[in-house]
Amino acid sequence: MSPPEKKARNAGYTLYYWPGIPGRGEYIRLAFEYAGIPYTENLNPETLESTIHDASKVGHPPHFAPPMLELPSGHTISQTPAILNHIAPKLGLAGALGSKLATGEGLTEEEREKAEEERSAVNQLVLTALDVNNEAHDVHHPIASSKYYEEQKEAALERAADFRASRIPKFLAHFENVLTTNPATADGERTYLIGKQTTTADLVLFHVMDGLLFAFPKRMAAVNKSKEYDHVFKLHKRVARENGIKEYIASGRRQKFSMGLFRHYKELDGDE
Amino acid sequence: MSPPEKKARNAGYTLYYWPGIPGRGEYIRLAFEYAGIPYTENLNPETLESTIHDASKVGHPPHFAPPMLELPSGHTISQTPAILNHIAPKLGLAGALGSKLATGEGLTEEEREKAEEERSAVNQLVLTALDVNNEAHDVHHPIASSKYYEEQKEAALERAADFRASRIPKFLAHFENVLTTNPATADGERTYLIGKQTTTADLVLFHVMDGLLFAFPKRMAAVNKSKEYDHVFKLHKRVARENGIKEYIASGRRQKFSMGLFRHYKELDGDE
Repeated sequence: MSPPEKKARNAGYTLYYWPGIPGRGEYIRLAFEYAGIPYTENLNPETLESTIHDASKVGHPPHFAPPMLELPSGHTISQTPAILNHIAPKLGLAGALGSKLATGEGLTEEEREKAEEERSAVNQLVLTALDVNNEAHDVHHPIASSKYYEEQKEAALERAADFRASRIPKFLAHFENVLTTNPATADGERTYLIGKQTTTADLVLFHVMDGLLFAFPKRMAAVNKSKEYDHVFKLHKRVARENGIKEYIASGRRQKFSMGLFRHYKELDGDE
Repeated sequence: MSPPEKKARNAGYTLYYWPGIPGRGEYIRLAFEYAGIPYTENLNPETLESTIHDASKVGHPPHFAPPMLELPSGHTISQTPAILNHIAPKLGLAGALGSKLATGEGLTEEEREKAEEERSAVNQLVLTALDVNNEAHDVHHPIASSKYYEEQKEAALERAADFRASRIPKFLAHFENVLTTNPATADGERTYLIGKQTTTADLVLFHVMDGLLFAFPKRMAAVNKSKEYDHVFKLHKRVARENGIKEYIASGRRQKFSMGLFRHYKELDGDE
């Protein structure tokens, strides 16, 4: 007979999230799809919140909001960047060195330190890309996420103008800077944020670019035309062709943007 | 003669941030003050942004915004939660198990996995507490951080009403839930979020409570009176008395809230 803690373990990873939208769950899905690691989903909107808030169901600490990921050990984690930072080494997505922390075996103290630094660099870039995601949401909900867009449209129009004119170029310039100063890609295409292999940072930026292109097609066409952020656009194309990701896109399983975090309202978009 | 990479190393940690406000830098300071680890600060507003954006000065990847922390190795990290997650084990602030990842020596594979889980649980709670920080900022700047408060006061009044009525209780209820379901403190005071020792999550929540009490004194007095979030208020008092923190507060070195992330505008506060 197995000891009790063995019985509580499931076979793999389970993602708990809202159904019907890519949302923040998509950042987790992309990591598993790229890595080719199976995961299941629990998308029951009627039990989602009551489950994740309940320590008797999900263990300690309970969670504030989805996505929540149940690990093979039974432990649960929420907060998109915390989930990604946890699984990145295990999925080989924390950089060449950072991913060695998956087992941590055979590393000298200095190698471990460098591996932790690479993993943190990936985490740092994930967090900045997710800031874009959060700001893109706040464009259509600047007052309260609990109220309808129509109730805050005036403020949304103002915030959208600032997001398009100031924030989009500022964020894209940062990622262009990171891509074009990466010493590991000095001789190549410069479409990797860290090292010369795909990390969670590349995957998150890929999805953020997808979201911006959906929500602000006019503005994104204008910034693309400027040629100032060419490497960011090239990263977006490169990730779409990666093994795992191209099959995921072709499968039809990837949910379309609609009324989630990234939304297209014609009046919030513009060339400038 | 030392090898070149040795020469680039400094003696310890240096925090790069804006002068004059606690800001996001304060979350990093509190970790060092609690742990009793020395750190220096570079608070030159004229060179701050040009330095952190420049990979030739800070290494790769360059940074989007301060705070930036230079590690003893010379490597630099930005994004408050990434910095805290990186240093937490080294400062003994990632929980009893999580902090063993500082060296990672002598851990079995199962212990390492549990340690990673505890570190991620701390990271998760840090991220949610920092979400409160970010939302408290957006209350007075709902349209654009680059514009004056007075230019977005109308929207701020609306956002403040929602933040006070919905968001403050929702966040406090979450942390109360985490504190009162912590199995490690079942017999005690229940003022630790994870395990029964101070973590970065406790320190961040402490400072967020300080900020809320400064910015929304009326609303916080009302929620305190309700007795629904007693353990969160007790955590706030407990951390203020901790070794390292109480000396820091008494030293006068801790900067006062003013016109930073947490701001007190009378018209944005209220009992409800």
